[in-house]
Amino acid sequence: MDAALESLSKALRIFAAERDWEQFHSPKNLAAALTVEAAELLEHFQWLTEEQSRSLPPDKRVAVSHEMADVLLYLLQLADRLQVDLVAAARRKLELNASKYPVSRARGSSRKYSDPD
Amino acid sequence: MDAALESLSKALRIFAAERDWEQFHSPKNLAAALTVEAAELLEHFQWLTEEQSRSLPPDKRVAVSHEMADVLLYLLQLADRLQVDLVAAARRKLELNASKYPVSRARGSSRKYSDPD
Amino acid sequence: MDAALESLSKALRIFAAERDWEQFHSPKNLAAALTVEAAELLEHFQWLTEEQSRSLPPDKRVAVSHEMADVLLYLLQLADRLQVDLVAAARRKLELNASKYPVSRARGSSRKYSDPD
Amino acid sequence: MDAALESLSKALRIFAAERDWEQFHSPKNLAAALTVEAAELLEHFQWLTEEQSRSLPPDKRVAVSHEMADVLLYLLQLADRLQVDLVAAARRKLELNASKYPVSRARGSSRKYSDPD
Repeated sequence: MDAALESLSKALRIFAAERDWEQFHSPKNLAAALTVEAAELLEHFQWLTEEQSRSLPPDKRVAVSHEMADVLLYLLQLADRLQVDLVAAARRKLELNASKYPVSRARGSSRKYSDPD
Repeated sequence: MDAALESLSKALRIFAAERDWEQFHSPKNLAAALTVEAAELLEHFQWLTEEQSRSLPPDKRVAVSHEMADVLLYLLQLADRLQVDLVAAARRKLELNASKYPVSRARGSSRKYSDPD
Repeated sequence: MDAALESLSKALRIFAAERDWEQFHSPKNLAAALTVEAAELLEHFQWLTEEQSRSLPPDKRVAVSHEMADVLLYLLQLADRLQVDLVAAARRKLELNASKYPVSRARGSSRKYSDPD
Repeated sequence: MDAALESLSKALRIFAAERDWEQFHSPKNLAAALTVEAAELLEHFQWLTEEQSRSLPPDKRVAVSHEMADVLLYLLQLADRLQVDLVAAARRKLELNASKYPVSRARGSSRKYSDPD
């Protein structure tokens, strides 16, 4: 984990401890809270066209960035609880994706993509 | 943004460009994909007790870390598209939360928490 | 509740009882499972354009209908557990929405809609 | 589809038409909105214990029933757009589940359940 994320994780640990909130922060509950925040992020986009989503008005962009922050904050807390190195896990996943979707076959196609597996 | 996340973002940009996938990656679509990945993460926990979620068997923990990686990867792509500095946004959000939930009033209570606002 | 939904609810009650699954079906867990199924539904649409989503190929439409069925099945089980009359609740909500979004002001605008409240 | 749901579907069709909202109601957007509502439902439960979720205070139960209504309303609109018979689809899915999880093997186990497939 890199320094900035590590520092955020530490701040979150203190934040929860000061409020005696660790009791609520089981991995199960954190995963639910993370999903709820992701959906709040999605809510900002649900009636927009894709084109509109590419050029958000400034106030909307700020609101969206708050929801993105919430997602990251819960993700960091979950990683902390499960002792997962998020950045290392993301690097590994990106490598897996590279072999799962080789450039030659995946180019311009969302087919693989659109078939849930 | 810190170095490790910046490097992941850059790798994701190249990954999408090589596959000509930028066309699918509107902020709207990325927000939907992020929510789907968050729910896949939640799926691992849905029938577990909170206690079980605190001590995952090793293979489950690996599977969970892959879903967490997917969430981070979409979050980084969305941040890249919207030019949001995720770490800065998370720091600001943590400060906002600190004033929203002062230690004196929030201690040991999930009340505020459980009332959606 | 009407006859068809009541009959489905009853079948679900027997289904869970035969498998001794009531222990997993707390309202909390059912709400998580419902959200996971909703996201699996969304997954089918995430990389499609809105236009493509309006004319699904037959096999995709069947897959989508299975996910919709899963959402309904969990919703019915949650309603059963919480003793909520789903149809009556939906009728009341539709009336609330009618006063919240009067025709004169809401016509053709997704503004209210796109501001999460 | 049974009479009560058919009548709700018809009311929703009129509701959207009067407000000229059909333009926003692509299957893709409806699936996103349904997921957002499911997550709002989950939000009410996220910090509760399973035990607490089994005995909600009356005002919470009402709030939860509103979110459940929202889920049903979007599900009906999606079914209407895709011409899916929700009740028939749910009956078929229940039959599929019965052969997927035979009583003899599934009894008291959430194992199959907890392995996303």
